This record gives sequence, structure tokens and C-alpha cells, in this order.
Amino acid sequence: MSFNTFGRLFRFTSFGESHGAAIGCVVDGVPPRMTLSAQEIQLELDRRRPGQSRFTTQRQEPDAVKIMSGVFTGEDGVQRTTGTPVMLMIENVDQRSKDYSDIKDKYRPGHAGYVYDVKYGLHDYRGGGRASARETAVRVAAGAIARRIVPGLSVRAALVQMGPHKVDRARWDWNEVAKNPFFCPDPVQAKFFEDYLDGIRKAGSSIGAVIEVVADGVPAGLGAPVYGKLDAELASALMGINAVKGVEIGDGMAVAELRGEDNADEMRMGNDRKPVFLSNHAGGILGGISTGQPIVARFAVKPTSSILTPRKTVDRYGNDTEIVTKGRHDPCVGIRAVPIAEAMVACVLADHYLLHRGQMGEGTVWPFAKPGA
Amino acid sequence: MSFNTFGRLFRFTSFGESHGAAIGCVVDGVPPRMTLSAQEIQLELDRRRPGQSRFTTQRQEPDAVKIMSGVFTGEDGVQRTTGTPVMLMIENVDQRSKDYSDIKDKYRPGHAGYVYDVKYGLHDYRGGGRASARETAVRVAAGAIARRIVPGLSVRAALVQMGPHKVDRARWDWNEVAKNPFFCPDPVQAKFFEDYLDGIRKAGSSIGAVIEVVADGVPAGLGAPVYGKLDAELASALMGINAVKGVEIGDGMAVAELRGEDNADEMRMGNDRKPVFLSNHAGGILGGISTGQPIVARFAVKPTSSILTPRKTVDRYGNDTEIVTKGRHDPCVGIRAVPIAEAMVACVLADHYLLHRGQMGEGTVWPFAKPGA
Amino acid sequence: MSFNTFGRLFRFTSFGESHGAAIGCVVDGVPPRMTLSAQEIQLELDRRRPGQSRFTTQRQEPDAVKIMSGVFTGEDGVQRTTGTPVMLMIENVDQRSKDYSDIKDKYRPGHAGYVYDVKYGLHDYRGGGRASARETAVRVAAGAIARRIVPGLSVRAALVQMGPHKVDRARWDWNEVAKNPFFCPDPVQAKFFEDYLDGIRKAGSSIGAVIEVVADGVPAGLGAPVYGKLDAELASALMGINAVKGVEIGDGMAVAELRGEDNADEMRMGNDRKPVFLSNHAGGILGGISTGQPIVARFAVKPTSSILTPRKTVDRYGNDTEIVTKGRHDPCVGIRAVPIAEAMVACVLADHYLLHRGQMGEGTVWPFAKPGA
Amino acid sequence: MSFNTFGRLFRFTSFGESHGAAIGCVVDGVPPRMTLSAQEIQLELDRRRPGQSRFTTQRQEPDAVKIMSGVFTGEDGVQRTTGTPVMLMIENVDQRSKDYSDIKDKYRPGHAGYVYDVKYGLHDYRGGGRASARETAVRVAAGAIARRIVPGLSVRAALVQMGPHKVDRARWDWNEVAKNPFFCPDPVQAKFFEDYLDGIRKAGSSIGAVIEVVADGVPAGLGAPVYGKLDAELASALMGINAVKGVEIGDGMAVAELRGEDNADEMRMGNDRKPVFLSNHAGGILGGISTGQPIVARFAVKPTSSILTPRKTVDRYGNDTEIVTKGRHDPCVGIRAVPIAEAMVACVLADHYLLHRGQMGEGTVWPFAKPGA
Repeated sequence: MSFNTFGRLFRFTSFGESHGAAIGCVVDGVPPRMTLSAQEIQLELDRRRPGQSRFTTQRQEPDAVKIMSGVFTGEDGVQRTTGTPVMLMIENVDQRSKDYSDIKDKYRPGHAGYVYDVKYGLHDYRGGGRASARETAVRVAAGAIARRIVPGLSVRAALVQMGPHKVDRARWDWNEVAKNPFFCPDPVQAKFFEDYLDGIRKAGSSIGAVIEVVADGVPAGLGAPVYGKLDAELASALMGINAVKGVEIGDGMAVAELRGEDNADEMRMGNDRKPVFLSNHAGGILGGISTGQPIVARFAVKPTSSILTPRKTVDRYGNDTEIVTKGRHDPCVGIRAVPIAEAMVACVLADHYLLHRGQMGEGTVWPFAKPGA
Repeated sequence: MSFNTFGRLFRFTSFGESHGAAIGCVVDGVPPRMTLSAQEIQLELDRRRPGQSRFTTQRQEPDAVKIMSGVFTGEDGVQRTTGTPVMLMIENVDQRSKDYSDIKDKYRPGHAGYVYDVKYGLHDYRGGGRASARETAVRVAAGAIARRIVPGLSVRAALVQMGPHKVDRARWDWNEVAKNPFFCPDPVQAKFFEDYLDGIRKAGSSIGAVIEVVADGVPAGLGAPVYGKLDAELASALMGINAVKGVEIGDGMAVAELRGEDNADEMRMGNDRKPVFLSNHAGGILGGISTGQPIVARFAVKPTSSILTPRKTVDRYGNDTEIVTKGRHDPCVGIRAVPIAEAMVACVLADHYLLHRGQMGEGTVWPFAKPGA
Repeated sequence: MSFNTFGRLFRFTSFGESHGAAIGCVVDGVPPRMTLSAQEIQLELDRRRPGQSRFTTQRQEPDAVKIMSGVFTGEDGVQRTTGTPVMLMIENVDQRSKDYSDIKDKYRPGHAGYVYDVKYGLHDYRGGGRASARETAVRVAAGAIARRIVPGLSVRAALVQMGPHKVDRARWDWNEVAKNPFFCPDPVQAKFFEDYLDGIRKAGSSIGAVIEVVADGVPAGLGAPVYGKLDAELASALMGINAVKGVEIGDGMAVAELRGEDNADEMRMGNDRKPVFLSNHAGGILGGISTGQPIVARFAVKPTSSILTPRKTVDRYGNDTEIVTKGRHDPCVGIRAVPIAEAMVACVLADHYLLHRGQMGEGTVWPFAKPGA
Repeated sequence: MSFNTFGRLFRFTSFGESHGAAIGCVVDGVPPRMTLSAQEIQLELDRRRPGQSRFTTQRQEPDAVKIMSGVFTGEDGVQRTTGTPVMLMIENVDQRSKDYSDIKDKYRPGHAGYVYDVKYGLHDYRGGGRASARETAVRVAAGAIARRIVPGLSVRAALVQMGPHKVDRARWDWNEVAKNPFFCPDPVQAKFFEDYLDGIRKAGSSIGAVIEVVADGVPAGLGAPVYGKLDAELASALMGINAVKGVEIGDGMAVAELRGEDNADEMRMGNDRKPVFLSNHAGGILGGISTGQPIVARFAVKPTSSILTPRKTVDRYGNDTEIVTKGRHDPCVGIRAVPIAEAMVACVLADHYLLHRGQMGEGTVWPFAKPGA
């Protein structure tokens, strides 16, 4: 099976390979009359774009997005969505005409080339083809539209761990995230990461990372009770990012060690007749449905398989051999996962916002109206 | 949105509440001519059934499943699937006519009651209604069919951690899993868990756990490259189990600390012209597609919110109050998640097996045929 | 492929065979807090129920529907939907223990038995199994819920032709439909049909029919512009009713003979700032989207294949033979299609009503606000 | 709701407006290793392309298709599908910079502009925007791939009626279809249509038509028994073509007049142990499943609303007015529906071929093996 569509009511279908003519997606289900310009989408893409520091692949891609359909400029000169499919296209520019002959017949351990060959009987080995991290640009583009659909929504992510080194949460400052090449919210640790990652990069090695995503302004009530649970959908969205091997919501794997009385997020009434939660172990989701607290998710990204250390492998003809992956690559591919994760979370939330509105209508029936109601 | 269908080609739609007449599901897409009896499904249900030890809720439910459609007994007296929907129904028996008046208007911290009220404007509070763990019986029933669809598939799970206490993997013995009330593969630790959980139970508290699922015999090539990735689908299936807050594939969250050379699963040719992997950090999935190695997943289950320690909360009328949850409950709800997890993994694999066969046909195009092929 | 789910946001999954324990469906996506009783659904089922006149099959089925999940009775004693799946079950009662040995191995020309055997390798021949018209009872049950979702919606159908005999539209009276066993809006023609169909019935023959469905109160704007067009969805829903071979919207097949100036539904402004259409050739749908006019559809139902005249056929072992179908059957199966068609149209409209609300929100942006808007 | 994806396993997502930069689609689920070139797709597009005779719109569009992704050229120099999404793009060339000011604020009776405004609150009026027949080019492109998926499949269509004038089936010759500008299989009637349509064209009027599609080589067993019936899916696919108002399978609406003994397609055993049907009233489908006979469908296309005769209408500001549509248009838009219908039928069959293979595997279980089997 090939499955390249994400979402239900807000959904996008992705296409394109690393070394083809273009990558892009068709975003369907966008509410009409939203202002939308390529520049807005470009701002998000620029955050993910490679080649902006020595810590990401040196492939030079402007990642210039074009809106090919689904918008219309009215008499007021403003471009708006029409409610029909928005096709976003990013032409590939830096398809380096490299000689792949030294690796094209060898399977890189930890890379998808082998399974593509088993599944499809062939694959485009150039730059990873469809498995390339390049595909994630289209998610960021789609996410730029998704972000605008839920009123008041803010989705931010940050790198919170690289190798064994975690950030100090006491120093967390969202404003720092844009100021270092690691999307790191801790300025002290960001400084440390420069030397640390330089060492890994120069050794031709790579390292894993943990990213945390926080969504503020999520209305309570989004999600579904059994199989389309909001946390299940987020888990799928984040695990579906290249190289991710673990996903946590709220306290995540650590809940295994908690007792019931410690895990409970106690409640008190706030001044606005909405309840206030005294903690957020749940990460903003209970029973698959958003509580109105911030949604907090984390995920671990494995180190890329493109390394200079020779590894044992086999070739397409069944011979034992070794492989070394030279060329442009990311020493910590988790870095670029930060804007991708924001986009994926935004897409899930936009989809569930529309789905919820479909079944329930627009007015939330707030509890606490009156006794007996 | 209410979404109660799981899967694409192999898919089931669940219905029923804890205190309604029955729970069950409609399983659609089942290949025809498979032998199928209620007894086979019952065997799986009996593993999940509550009330079998003092470590799970004392609700007495026989969980007797009936096959209401989709089978036909031929002239040979054997009951087989017809390829049309298989409806599985489990009548509720032990709907204790308990007085819910002391908790029906209070929101239990960590429980879904509050968000159901926000989302739907009402909810069936008796026994958790649709959010009850009781619904998971239908997943086990559907999974009993799913297990039979992929030839040679074996899906097993075990509890590997309770509270801070992990099993010793050197003592791992799958045969032990059925011999203790914890589904624990380590007989020494299982013994320890008896006292440990008794202590928690008697204190009216609850505790979290980690479960590991292993699928052997998964054909290489299942999955999809971008949004229907096999690991993303498994993450969704496992995160969708009640009370799960974290999911890992292979090395999981620990990959953050790995270097590329340590994370690579090196390959060598085996005697049968298939490659042998020298490790399984990937947990059997690369690029969203199965490698043919065992698929390994883990997930953390939070402690249940039904505890005797009073917790601060609010009621439906907006008053601050406290809540204590008496009555039948699971001191470690993770225990019963073991057969549920097996079922969910089996359902994902059955679905992707059929999807793969749809796009690719039955013959796998194995690499290594010959140079130049 | 087995596909037994209808709809997207409002959707139901059907199960059950003619001679199994029960038939029924799981209705998902129902908005919460709607009052819903089994009696209301029963009213619709009673209209489709067989055995009410000599002109439909003499199978005696009470078709008593039970609501097995998805409703909750509040403190006011009123039963309401909870927003979770509503399972509707109808137990089979009159599964006459007839000896099928004379037909079980013969393929009835015009019946699905042969293709079921080819597709699935087996089938439940008793009473048609899954292909039985009995399955349509669950559509009527689901439709009874669907009807209530779109505010102000009225869906009515009538038999407008039996064999070559059409009703006289000048005598059309919706009140007559419930007064004769044919759902015929023309009392004169209904009288004629009694003798006409008696003749066919006594000859052991059967006859085709045309049914017309009219939906009033459909909001303008429902549908989708390209592949989920409202007319395409209605065509699928109606063609999916057993024995239907043709579907028309508005002027239907007759548009082939029209010129552009005759086919245009001209417009004039009404007093309420909404336009008035001067005709309805389009049947209430333009470009796949509802116009606000009544939606008008028609479909032709073939004569049932259960007849007393011997027909040439083959048996399951590859022998040429003849078949005669005795037993209970419908001389004009189109009659019972009337309430089924209403139900299917209601389901399509409910689904698109929710889908529209999801993407657009609740407020329709009505044109004509002001120049330049 | 905006819904722009067609199909389940074989599916394509369409984008683009008449006067935007490009139209196109992403075709997902294509089996890998199929040879595929842009030239092959172009051949189909050239059949639909406007401006090839005086009987279709004079818009000059080369409709040159580019394959932007999903193919790979191996060492043998042959381009093959990779199993990942195939993006097909057609740039718009002849977007005549016409002054739309005389019609942009008036609703054309019978055109979708009014309902787009009601649904979306705005629409791209230039050339019909998304509602333009131009979108159908992408269906033809997707269909060119679909045709190749079912082995041995042939899908052909022909115009069988224009206005009140039908072809003489005794003169039917498929070879004639490509020899006249009407896709007419009857050379005598084709000659007549030249004068007939010239008269309509010169009068600034338009006329309806009926198209017949025949699919040969469809394996028995495709389809689904209840809601994804093959005839229901074809009805949806054909009704979803612009301007279609009626769809028939086999004898279509005429079955209303048939008796059971006349409608039965009797069977006899053929020499190859497959049954032979003695007629094809069913149009190759029984109970929603293909019989192995040719699938025969027909549909009626209404006359286009772009005519020179003034029609009463309203404008966007709520004023009564009149409209005349000048400019390029099709006097019989049904003509160009011929290749579109072939494409849509091919897409439905490809999808169901893959779906069937998914659930059933590749080997058909043919009846007639032996008594008792």
C-alpha cells in the first residue's frame, strides 16, 4: 500500500522525491475566505530549510513555495482561499548530479532503501527518493495553513535533549528558540550544543535528540473517544516523522512509575466558570479528548544512518560488503524535526477542530450552567 | 467527532457502553473461507477478562462472545467466514445496580468524564460509559480474527515494568507469561509483584506499568512510506488503548542518546538468500515499512484514577469539592492491557497485510535475484 | 473487498444475513443530545416491513428494533443520544426452516448467488444471505436517525410507475401515499395497480417500477464540487439499493433531448432576499451542490428474479439445468424500495450537512449582502 | 466540505482551476514497476482536448501532461512507476485575458456559480474556476494509468444519442468512433450530426446527449455486496462528471417495464467450465458484483448553460437581470464526456481490482470445481 494522505476533513496529499522535479502537496478541506499568501507559508518553510548553519545538511534548497490553486484575489487585492484544493509546490533546485555508483547497490543500515526494494521491487535511491527528509517540507507547508484554522491556536516546539544532554527547564525561554541553530529553549545548553555537535559532525558521526511540542489555545472537547483519540492521532502524526522512534503525551513513559494520587490532575473552579487544573500530567488530553490545558508531546529522533564509520551490510546482489555514507547530511537530524513537529500537530488539531464542528456545531455546551442542567 | 472504526481494509466498528445492554463490534473485510468459531475468540477474551485474580477489578463478566453474522456452516459441518461483516456481541451481565449518586456529579481527576461533558454536553457516567475499559473487550475479539489473517504471524505481549520495578530480561521466558496474574515473563519479578501490588491495592492506590509487544513472523514490506507508516499506525493503535501515555518502537526514547554507528542494524547475508540483521534497534521497522525482523513496541500505562485518596475536584455545578472513588477497580490497569495490545497490533498488521496485497499482489519481489535485476 | 459502511461523518456499518440471528447497524457520528426512542425508528421500519399486504413477500417479520448503545436517559426521564455509536439491532424471527435443497446448488438468473460464489468461494444461500432485501431494514433504521439531523428536512418518496403504467402527476397527492399498499401518490392509478399486480402475482411473475424521491428543506450549499458531488453521492446511494438499475436527478435521462435555453432554471429575486427559481430541471443540484430547491431523484427497480417461470441456468457443479423459485417473494420489489430510498437520501443529506458544517462553520455566507461584498 | 479525492486503494486527488497556473492530480496506490510514460497519458488527453473541431470549445489548450513524481528510470532506460504518488500536472496556457465584467456578477442559470457563492462565500468566476470542464482533463490523465492496472481490461465509450437522435445499433462499429468528431459509432448518424450540431452551434444554443460506456475483460467478482457496490460506484463516478443528470446500468430505466422472466439473464455452461450468459440485461453486474460479462453503462449529459439566448437571472447584489453567455463554449458538451467516462470507469475498476485482491488474494476460487466442494 502506498498511502500519502494525512487527515480527514483537513487533509493533504503529498508527492515528490528528493531528486525529482518538485515536491508538494494538495491541501483539501481548507475553510474558504481565509487570507493566504505564499509569503506566510514561506516563513515556516524557511525555519525548516537546510543549509542555514553548519549543523544541518549543506544541500542548498531555497524551498520556494508556490500556491498553484485554491486561492483567488478579490477586488480588494487580497488573496483568499476559495475552499477548493490548495496545491503547494516546491521545485527541487539543488539535485546535485552526484555519482551514486558507490552506494546505489548497497543497503545503508538503518535506512529505508532495503525495505523499499522488498516492498516495491525497486526504488529511487537518489537522495533517498520518497524516504528523503525532503518530503517533510510539504508537511511544514501544509501546517502553515493548518495553524490558521483553529482560532487562538499556538503550536511551538523546541529541542530539549541532544544525546544524553537535556535542557534545564528552569532556563526555558521560548524566545531563545529562534536565536540558536538548535531550536533550543535553554541558552546555556544551546551554547554547549555548538561544541558538542561540532565534535560529532567532524567525527562523521550523528546523534539522536528529543523534541517537545506544546500547543496552547486548544479548545476543550477536540478528539474522539475510542479509535480517533486525539493522543492516538498525535502519536501517529509524530511517529510518522522520519527517524522518530518514541512518542510521549504529558508525562509519557514516566507514568509507569507514578501512583494514582500523584498522576491525578486536580481541579478547582476558576473565576471565569471554567475549571483550573492544578497540574498537567495528562498533557492536555483525557480519554482521547482535549481538556483545554496545553497539549504537551515529546518524541525521540534517532541519529541519521548517513555516517562515515564503515558499517557491515549487503548489496542488491546478495554479497556481504561495507558501506560508508559520504556527502551532505545532518549530524543531528532531530534539529530539523522541530518545525515539522509543529506542523504535524497543527494539522491534527485543525482536522479535529473541523471534525468536532461537523458533529457538534459551533456552540460548545459548557458544563456548570446550572444544577440539574 | 465520534470515530469508532479502526482500520482500512481489515476494519472493525465498535459499539457499547459499560452499563448498556451489550458491547461488540462489526468486523469488516475478513477474508472468506477462514474457519472461525466463537470458542477461538473466547480464548482470547478469557485472557483479558476481569475478576480472575485479586489484582484486577472484581466485576464479574463472563464476556461470552456470540458471532451474530458473517459465518456459514457448510455441508462438512465446519463454520467459515463468508467475507461479509462478522458481528461479535458480548452482553453485559454484571451491571451492578450501584448507587452512583456520590460521584455522578463530580469529575474524577484523570478520568474522561469532564471532557465528555464538555464535548458532548452529557455523558453516561455509569461505569465510565463509553470510556470504560470494558470497550477494550471488543478489540480483543476483533484481534482474535486479525491474528489469523497474516500467515505465520505470532503476536505476544508481556508486562515488563510495574512502578519503578523492571523485569530482568535475562530471565525472560514467554512460557511464564500465562503462569502469573501479571503477564510477566520473569518469574522472579512476578513473585515480587504479588506483594508489591497487594500493598498498593490495600492502600486504595494504583500504579503504572510498561508493556512490551513482540510480533514475530511479520513479512518484510508491510507499511507505507509517508503517512500510513507501519510504526505510525502502531503508535496510534497503542496510544489509543485506555490510559496509555507513551509508545516506543525498537529502542524508543533511548535513541536520543545513541550515535549513528551504534544505532545502525548491520546486515549480513543468510543462508536462504535473505539478509540477517545483526541487531534490532529499529524494532523491525525502517522508513515505515517492516524489515522482516520481529516488530518490538512498548508503551506506558498510567495508574487508574479510581483511588481511595481524596482528590480536589469540581462538580458539574461549578463547586469545588473532593472525590474518593470506591468500588471495583484495577490497582494496575496496565495488566489487562497486555492482551489488548496484542489484539491492536494484530489488527494493524492484518490491515496492512491486506493493503499490501491489494497494491502489490501476492508475489513479493525479493531483491538479490541477480546482478542487474 | 467487503464494504459495509455508508457515509463519512454521519455513517453506519451494517451487518447480518437473512437467516442469521439478527441484522443491524452501528450508526456513528450522531450529534449528541438528540431525543431518540426505539418507537420513532420503529415507525419507519413498519413502513418497509414485509407481509403487510398480499403485494409483498409473506415473510412475517415484526422487525422490532432495539437500541443497544449510544443513548442515555437523563434525570428528566428522556432518552437522548450521547454522541457515541448507536447500535440498532433487529432480530430475525421468521427464518422459515424451509428445505433449500431444490435451489441451493442452482444459480438463479438475475440473482447475486453466482457472483458471491465467484467472489468469496462460498455464500449463505438461505434467503439470499447478505444479498437479501432484508438488509435494507437497517438502512431504514439508520435513516430514521438521519432524518432528524438536518433541521427542517423532509424526505418523501412515492412509486410513480409500475411496469409501463405511470401515475398521472396532475393527481399527485402526498397524502395518498400512505393510503394504498403501493406508496402511490395517484389514487386512481393505485386502484388500477391492485388488479394489475394481482395478475402478475398470480402468474408467478414479477414486474419493475420507478420510484421518485423528493427532499424538501435542503439548505443551499450542501455537497462538494468535484468527486463528492451531492448528485454523485445520491446516485451511489440509490443505485446501491437492491435491484436498482438506473438513477436520475431532476430531468434525468431526458436532458439529452433538451436545448440549453429549455434546460436553464431561470432566477428571480424573492421577497426574502433569496432567489426564486422559475423551474427545477436541475432537481435541486447544480455543480454537485444543493441550490435550496427541492431535490428530486428517480430510480428504476428491476423485477425480482424469484419467479415461477422456469429459467435456464447452471448448477454449482457445472451442469446445465432449469430453475423455478417458489416460496415467499415480492411481485414488485420496487414497492418496498420507497421507504428505503427515503432513508438513503436522508443519510446522504445528514452526512453532507455535517461535512459542510465542519468546513464552513454554522453561518451561511449568503450572497446579495451588498454591492462589492 | 471540499472533497477532491476519488477512489480508495487506487485513488487520485485533483487540484486546479480553469484560469489558475495549472491543473493536475496526485495518483496514489499505483502498483510499482509498471512502465509509464507521459506520452501514453498524452494519447488519452489528446482525445479529450478541446479545439479539435468546430464542435467543441475553441479554447486552445495543448493539455501537455508532465509526470512530476513517482517514476524512476532504471539502468535499462525504461521509466517505471515506483509505487509512490504519481503527480500529473497540466499547465494552463490559453487563459484568455478576457473581460469578465459583463458576467462576473450575474448568476448563469444552470451553472454552478450561484451555489459556489452560497457554499463558499466567494468563487473564482473566471472560466468557471473549479467547476470548469477543464478539471476533467485530470480525470482522463488518472484514467490512463488506471486502464493499465486490470489485466486485459478494455474500456470504450461512444456517443449514442444527441438531442432526440439516437444511433442505429445495427450499424455500431467501434472503429468509427475515432473517425468523427462526435465519438459516434454509427457512421451514418455521425454524418447527420454534423449538420444538426452546426445548426445548434450557429443558433448559439446547445444540446444534450447520451453516452454509453462498455468495459470488456472485467474479471468476475469485483465489487462489494452492500454499500460499495460496483454499480453504485460507477453511478457515482459517472454522475460526478460535469452536467450528467442520469445514469443507467444494463437495461437501466427500462427495467421498470420488464417482467421477471424477460429480465433474467439465463445461463448455460461454456466449453471452458465458465458459464455463458444468454443475455446481458444486468449490464455485467449482479448484487453489486461483476459477473464477467461486459459492463455496460449509459448516462445523459445536459446541454451547457453557456448560450446566446438571454435568460432571466439575478446578480450578486440581488437585482433581477438577464444574461447572455458569449465566448468559447461547447454546443454539445456531451461529446467531450466520452473519454472522461472511459477514464472514470477505468478508475473505478482499477480501485476495485486492487481492493478485491487485498481481501481475497490473487487466486479466484472458481465454482464448478467438483460436487460437494
